[in-house]
Amino acid sequence: MDLDAVLDHIDANLDASLERLFALLRIPSISTDPAFAGDCRRAADWLVADLATMGIAAESRPTTGHPVVFGKADGPAGKPRVLLYGHYDVQPVDPLSLWQEDPFAPRVVTREDGSKMIVGRGSCDDKGQMMSMIEALRAIKAVTGSLPVPVTVMLEGEEESGSPSLPGFFEATKDELKADAVFVCDTGMWDKSTPAIAMSLRGLVAHDIIVRAADRDLHSGQFGGPARNPNHVLAKILADLHDEDGRVTIPGFYEGVGEPSEAQKANWASLKMTAEDYLGPIGLAEPAGEKGRTVLEQVWSRPTCEVNGMSGGYTGAGFKTVIPSEASAKVSFRLVGDQDPAKLRAALKDFVRERVPGDCTVEFIDHGMGPAFRVPDDWRMLQVGAEALEAEWGKAPAMVGMGGSIPVVHDFKHTLGMDTLMIGFALEDDRVHSPNEKYELSSFHKGMRSWARVFAAL
Amino acid sequence: MDLDAVLDHIDANLDASLERLFALLRIPSISTDPAFAGDCRRAADWLVADLATMGIAAESRPTTGHPVVFGKADGPAGKPRVLLYGHYDVQPVDPLSLWQEDPFAPRVVTREDGSKMIVGRGSCDDKGQMMSMIEALRAIKAVTGSLPVPVTVMLEGEEESGSPSLPGFFEATKDELKADAVFVCDTGMWDKSTPAIAMSLRGLVAHDIIVRAADRDLHSGQFGGPARNPNHVLAKILADLHDEDGRVTIPGFYEGVGEPSEAQKANWASLKMTAEDYLGPIGLAEPAGEKGRTVLEQVWSRPTCEVNGMSGGYTGAGFKTVIPSEASAKVSFRLVGDQDPAKLRAALKDFVRERVPGDCTVEFIDHGMGPAFRVPDDWRMLQVGAEALEAEWGKAPAMVGMGGSIPVVHDFKHTLGMDTLMIGFALEDDRVHSPNEKYELSSFHKGMRSWARVFAAL
Repeated sequence: MDLDAVLDHIDANLDASLERLFALLRIPSISTDPAFAGDCRRAADWLVADLATMGIAAESRPTTGHPVVFGKADGPAGKPRVLLYGHYDVQPVDPLSLWQEDPFAPRVVTREDGSKMIVGRGSCDDKGQMMSMIEALRAIKAVTGSLPVPVTVMLEGEEESGSPSLPGFFEATKDELKADAVFVCDTGMWDKSTPAIAMSLRGLVAHDIIVRAADRDLHSGQFGGPARNPNHVLAKILADLHDEDGRVTIPGFYEGVGEPSEAQKANWASLKMTAEDYLGPIGLAEPAGEKGRTVLEQVWSRPTCEVNGMSGGYTGAGFKTVIPSEASAKVSFRLVGDQDPAKLRAALKDFVRERVPGDCTVEFIDHGMGPAFRVPDDWRMLQVGAEALEAEWGKAPAMVGMGGSIPVVHDFKHTLGMDTLMIGFALEDDRVHSPNEKYELSSFHKGMRSWARVFAAL
Repeated sequence: MDLDAVLDHIDANLDASLERLFALLRIPSISTDPAFAGDCRRAADWLVADLATMGIAAESRPTTGHPVVFGKADGPAGKPRVLLYGHYDVQPVDPLSLWQEDPFAPRVVTREDGSKMIVGRGSCDDKGQMMSMIEALRAIKAVTGSLPVPVTVMLEGEEESGSPSLPGFFEATKDELKADAVFVCDTGMWDKSTPAIAMSLRGLVAHDIIVRAADRDLHSGQFGGPARNPNHVLAKILADLHDEDGRVTIPGFYEGVGEPSEAQKANWASLKMTAEDYLGPIGLAEPAGEKGRTVLEQVWSRPTCEVNGMSGGYTGAGFKTVIPSEASAKVSFRLVGDQDPAKLRAALKDFVRERVPGDCTVEFIDHGMGPAFRVPDDWRMLQVGAEALEAEWGKAPAMVGMGGSIPVVHDFKHTLGMDTLMIGFALEDDRVHSPNEKYELSSFHKGMRSWARVFAAL
């Protein structure tokens, strides 16, 4: 393959690549909110049509939730089949008032120093990153006339809501999914100039907890004192989840959590990341997690328990002296090592039930669940990826852990025996999941080039 | 005065009285939500016009918030001037989905046993109760041609949001407010057949507490662990507010809280109210307040701290793995005895600030504030009220405490030396402040008759 011609093609056609990305970014495919189900379908259909233009016959496959864009294309004999995984769904945009512009009106913003960023929900997570893989294949196809390897695409629409339909899709599709490697572009750079390969992901378990007391909202004058206030019950439960040292207090929580190896620790120490470096950019100064752990240890090798949402009683303008009939919280765990999601889910429920008074009730809503993942140190794709990144960025990539979760990566491994190469070009200040999400134009551009180099090396 | 003719007039004109009440109930005068400011003005204007028809020249006086309906009318020489206080504002109606009908489409519903209730927001608190006083005067005027006593009316529009404009109104109006007694109809019956006179009210202090951490919402994968979660900080603060015995832990909280006298205790014991009686009707069984206190002691003589609202992070459908940048709570105290609202407000702020990490901030929004109130045992109006109630209901009234707050009653006493006769006809199941608020038609009807008897006795 004439790699230089491919890279030149990418450079020369950057605007067209951006136009395609913007068309996808304009679709508000928020998976967690049922109001946007039609937009999720629309995003899937858009991808099917786009893949068709480069000779990948994909289809929008229905699931119990949002569709999966799935398709296969042949490639040169003797080459490994690569499965590209990405997700076309995005996070909700609230609070909308904090966005400087419409989250679904993507645009390129040029900074005073001349650098450019793509702004909009999904610009980074994951539409921008996902399209960098697809655009690399498109360039190779345009220049060489064919795809570099046999390709399978699987682009899902529920990653941001815990992928509830994915187990069913896996079960129904597993014979078709078989590939030699999975490529995912949903992770980050180490810093603006240093690429990274992600070696591990934390798992995730998420739940709603709803505590109910009286059968109606009460006047706090008439009933304040004798009547149980579910806000108090819930606040106590949430406060009990951590001890003074930042450790999670749920019995058995740390079962299956190994310590990082000395080599890993040394590698992480060499990255010289301080708490100030990590927290300063988001306006914080004091590490809040487990005492006696560095921030990289906390994010890459330690499990957490976070209250992602809580709500009860009157929360509007002014004041209402109410004792509400119910209060609710959204609580998630990030898992590492061999922590068992199902066991932890049960342990949380026991922990909560023990703290709910006899005349109150508690309801749980189970959201997504997936264990942690770690790629083998000696996998050959790691070497391919590292060399491609070094060629593009002029610097060896950092081999990092990741604090986030991509449950599907674990499923690929444990259901189908497939390992995943995770290379991504997000930066720490990309505000993924927050208002004013952005993606560096250079990440998109050099991301396409990096993937082209990976494919060329195969 | 021909009392029987007045009572007959009330009976014969019940439908017309109801029509007037319904016209007022149809106005959604929610004081705490700025979106309804125009409706508050409309309710005030309606009252001004209505009072004019019975010869009371009132006006809608502007304040820094919602207007006060204020006016004076002469009456027979030598009679005590009575100030009628009420409030035309109502509580918010959320959650709207729990209302069986439009909260502002009042109607009379007949039960299977033939008893009737008026349903709608404000039907009881306080439009229905307030109008029972006004309708009694209207009947006396219609039958006798004149008002029974010199009358001052002061109907405010901010009672449900802590009366923030009231101190300014008092200061500006105090010379005009002077009267021999204040009558308020905003309290309850002891039970369906036993009227009551309220001897005390709890005070109220209310605040918003807003804890802020990072300068943006964060991804709980990327930052879960090292980044401070304001939901955790706030839940811990809220959980710390009470100890295992249900006592409030804020230093100095119980200063100025006296014990009820032996006579009071004996009187309350004679009412034979059990925890089951009090909590059963709202679906609860276990008393939740301070250990070792009866429910009547808790509600009538003990201060409380309630979390009326809490909110932080994602609270919509589905799940969002966010660490929010802020979390907030609405916390109020009910006060008794000589507890000092300003001192307690400061103590709460100290208590919260001590628990907020160094790199987080806390903001407080102060809402209404007023100390507790107790009427002197030997006030002559108590005797007048008790005799009138016994004549109407065939039963001596219970002399009760009240758990709720009417800050203005304290202001009348301490700014102007005026005591307040609190007689009301609410029932425990009236769902004030809750969806499907109602007021017994008999409360409205016999309430008008009771007030007519009180006025006649003057």
